[in-house]
Amino acid sequence: MEELKLVKDNGKKSIVTVGDVKIGDGFLVIAGPCSVENENQINESALAVKKAGANILRGGAYKPRSSPYSFQGLGKDGLILLSNAGKLANMPVITEVIDTRDIELVCRYADIIQIGARNMQNYSLLTEVGKTGKPVMLKRGFYATVNEWLSSAEYILNEGNKNVILCERGIRTFETLTRNTLDLSSVALLRKLTHLPIIVDPSHATGRADLIEPMSLSAILSGCDGLMIEVHPTPNEALSDTEQAISTEAFAMLMGKIENTVEFKKTI
Amino acid sequence: MEELKLVKDNGKKSIVTVGDVKIGDGFLVIAGPCSVENENQINESALAVKKAGANILRGGAYKPRSSPYSFQGLGKDGLILLSNAGKLANMPVITEVIDTRDIELVCRYADIIQIGARNMQNYSLLTEVGKTGKPVMLKRGFYATVNEWLSSAEYILNEGNKNVILCERGIRTFETLTRNTLDLSSVALLRKLTHLPIIVDPSHATGRADLIEPMSLSAILSGCDGLMIEVHPTPNEALSDTEQAISTEAFAMLMGKIENTVEFKKTI
Amino acid sequence: MEELKLVKDNGKKSIVTVGDVKIGDGFLVIAGPCSVENENQINESALAVKKAGANILRGGAYKPRSSPYSFQGLGKDGLILLSNAGKLANMPVITEVIDTRDIELVCRYADIIQIGARNMQNYSLLTEVGKTGKPVMLKRGFYATVNEWLSSAEYILNEGNKNVILCERGIRTFETLTRNTLDLSSVALLRKLTHLPIIVDPSHATGRADLIEPMSLSAILSGCDGLMIEVHPTPNEALSDTEQAISTEAFAMLMGKIENTVEFKKTI
Amino acid sequence: MEELKLVKDNGKKSIVTVGDVKIGDGFLVIAGPCSVENENQINESALAVKKAGANILRGGAYKPRSSPYSFQGLGKDGLILLSNAGKLANMPVITEVIDTRDIELVCRYADIIQIGARNMQNYSLLTEVGKTGKPVMLKRGFYATVNEWLSSAEYILNEGNKNVILCERGIRTFETLTRNTLDLSSVALLRKLTHLPIIVDPSHATGRADLIEPMSLSAILSGCDGLMIEVHPTPNEALSDTEQAISTEAFAMLMGKIENTVEFKKTI
Repeated sequence: MEELKLVKDNGKKSIVTVGDVKIGDGFLVIAGPCSVENENQINESALAVKKAGANILRGGAYKPRSSPYSFQGLGKDGLILLSNAGKLANMPVITEVIDTRDIELVCRYADIIQIGARNMQNYSLLTEVGKTGKPVMLKRGFYATVNEWLSSAEYILNEGNKNVILCERGIRTFETLTRNTLDLSSVALLRKLTHLPIIVDPSHATGRADLIEPMSLSAILSGCDGLMIEVHPTPNEALSDTEQAISTEAFAMLMGKIENTVEFKKTI
Repeated sequence: MEELKLVKDNGKKSIVTVGDVKIGDGFLVIAGPCSVENENQINESALAVKKAGANILRGGAYKPRSSPYSFQGLGKDGLILLSNAGKLANMPVITEVIDTRDIELVCRYADIIQIGARNMQNYSLLTEVGKTGKPVMLKRGFYATVNEWLSSAEYILNEGNKNVILCERGIRTFETLTRNTLDLSSVALLRKLTHLPIIVDPSHATGRADLIEPMSLSAILSGCDGLMIEVHPTPNEALSDTEQAISTEAFAMLMGKIENTVEFKKTI
Repeated sequence: MEELKLVKDNGKKSIVTVGDVKIGDGFLVIAGPCSVENENQINESALAVKKAGANILRGGAYKPRSSPYSFQGLGKDGLILLSNAGKLANMPVITEVIDTRDIELVCRYADIIQIGARNMQNYSLLTEVGKTGKPVMLKRGFYATVNEWLSSAEYILNEGNKNVILCERGIRTFETLTRNTLDLSSVALLRKLTHLPIIVDPSHATGRADLIEPMSLSAILSGCDGLMIEVHPTPNEALSDTEQAISTEAFAMLMGKIENTVEFKKTI
Repeated sequence: MEELKLVKDNGKKSIVTVGDVKIGDGFLVIAGPCSVENENQINESALAVKKAGANILRGGAYKPRSSPYSFQGLGKDGLILLSNAGKLANMPVITEVIDTRDIELVCRYADIIQIGARNMQNYSLLTEVGKTGKPVMLKRGFYATVNEWLSSAEYILNEGNKNVILCERGIRTFETLTRNTLDLSSVALLRKLTHLPIIVDPSHATGRADLIEPMSLSAILSGCDGLMIEVHPTPNEALSDTEQAISTEAFAMLMGKIENTVEFKKTI
């Protein structure tokens, strides 16, 4: 890590401010569907996760999918629907960008830009979102060491954008019962290596709705600043990631446990 | 997992009884040094971890080491020292066996037999410890899927030995800042797949003393039944695993947090 | 692979024609430096590899580097130098594109566009190079299964571009003595799964100049259609990948062995 | 590798002599079924592989299987059948030992003892086979780095047994279309690191009969001293590893290509 200057721990934790939400100061929850599918779905999701206590609404408009024949997201229409749903529920919104040409458009509709795992080493994209100054959540590549992840964050910081948030979402291993292997040690380690806020995404890491609760609560004690959880009004009908989304009812129950755990964390 | 009959969840959690300790019923902590080095070291360790609240004393007499020129453990002398230290502190003891020819001797001195990660697929050893009826803690191979791990447990159960305990200790990945990657999702998953008790070993998983606290507390919320932690009176002078052992003082502080977290876990 | 239609074996091998070179019909060698550094370096490289028998000149103008403080390539100037060197030596040239906004420019100067390992799942980039119709060499992500790799190729083919070439360049494993692990089984397997031509890059896979010869010759017998080898006039002074480049002299000697092995391959 | 003294390259290649076969001097082929199943099967295999040109007969009597309910081998009866088949076909035989208590018995019937991948770090077993002085073929653990593998070989050499042979058989990666990933770079690398002979086992590495030919020929050019190939008179009826064994007819055809490739190798 010799070459990394801007990401490394300097004794003062970074805080990224988005509307009323201060990421890195207190605990926050990002929730919503994998993809924006239609107005009803995103509005219903937004109101439900807001009511349950979530702080930021997520929803994908540009979906990086392994197959060209899978649903690729609604694009600009999805951005508009997401933005409107955020206003409706009075929440900032986060969405992924996958092409430098779309950054301006995404910045217009989103409060936080997400760089997905597959693009963690898309250096053009990192440089360009760095230039915007907009809050950026950088997901860990499922193939990336912690040092490589921090190097990618350094790209964004090096363009003068201090609003960088890290998101652990599991790494690829030989285990097949979970989609990836959630690496909570990396969170504890990052706490010592960097001043940047850290979010954990148990949904993409495990790919299993039945593991979201234990992994969410475990993640809190590993030292993260927040969680990102996939929630869908009708998970079985989701157009993407159907196995890992939890229902709005399950999310409401989980939020109570998350809040209790966050409170407990303060006492230790 | 079609072929596995004996390990799979049957609606009733197994309890392995060792002296006063009921593994799988309530929470327990196994603590002690990586290796038994001499009488003072193991006695001091035993009294300190007992005082801090540990339930079972660990200490290696037969050490599987990558190099033939590394310290290999004290063998029978180590077993005697460990057994005496356990009596001194009034604690059951656990130690590793690595050769079928040593099982009888190890059974004489130990309350629980440990099968280490490197021997998870040493089927002769599994079969023979299965025949003893003695409690066996089976560590996950750092190379093993959850299904392969359960298959190895099935070997022991299939010999009629119901006293099997699983221990997650991290898997080998491409990440290099930690020794292995602790897989807490596997713990949450095993809760659904098997009736066997599950222990987590953050010491071998991370290989870093500075990550033991957050990973211990995270592990509790992932659903495990206990922890195994390496403790040494003077970690810097340990003959093996010096980077990952914590001091008896650090352990005493950690035990308070572990107990609080276990209490908190009951409320969610 | 149920969803893949266009990449899969149809009984007829694809041939991608670039100038006089027919990739997929006979054997070819792509050679040149990791990065275009200056006029002398690329011209000297071009003339030397041409003289030794190489068919296509490689050289990076846009370099995806882990650290923002490493040499990032000469950009447009590098493209011009590469193109001129190709003309000087009478060779088609290949270079990497890492941003959709640069595709038009790269197409102007290069005969084959390379999609690097880090961008194998950059679907915007895949789609856009698919629209150009230009020959595209798609490197395997070091994190990608063969099926994911083929899915990415399907993206390009699905835009109507039939000129796709695959390039195996090693996958990330736990082994540390080599940079990655060259997966020659994948080459033999792809021969059965797809009609696309397959190139092997032992330089990036091993990261070691001393393994280029045995891995090049092994690769030929695994069934590939060509090799891509990093060659530098003065490897010790290279601005990137200094450990893996071989000298022009070493390359000339290697080419003799490659040619003999290709001839031998025809007899078995 | 600082601690390794006995395995490392000393300028003089080791030769392990078994009957008329000199392993490490010239090229050899070990062939036969995964398991000894019955007299007909092993005799038929022995005569067929001998006729095709194989030098050593393989056959498992003690089979390490993931599930306790899978066929575990014929034990002593299998050893006797294997030994008799070797005499019938006038070939030395190799078989695996998995328990220190069986070493004496196995030594009585086998010419070479095999340590399987799962036991590469079974240090008791390594030490005991080291004491016998008998030729030992040490397979690479599918989880082991080259350095760890060499350390395990050092254990055997350190007991005074110089007759150690290494066998590359693939490592565990995320790729699922092959059983493991054959690491031929490790062979080329070992040529520089150690004086020990190196065998390649494409059967266990790929787990696919259709990849045996290209991987066998590739392996020869990577620099190995021999191949180990699973051959069964009726692969579809094999009691273990049915997907990867090739028929005696296929083996006879392959042997011709192997011999040609070995001859070709001498010319480069």
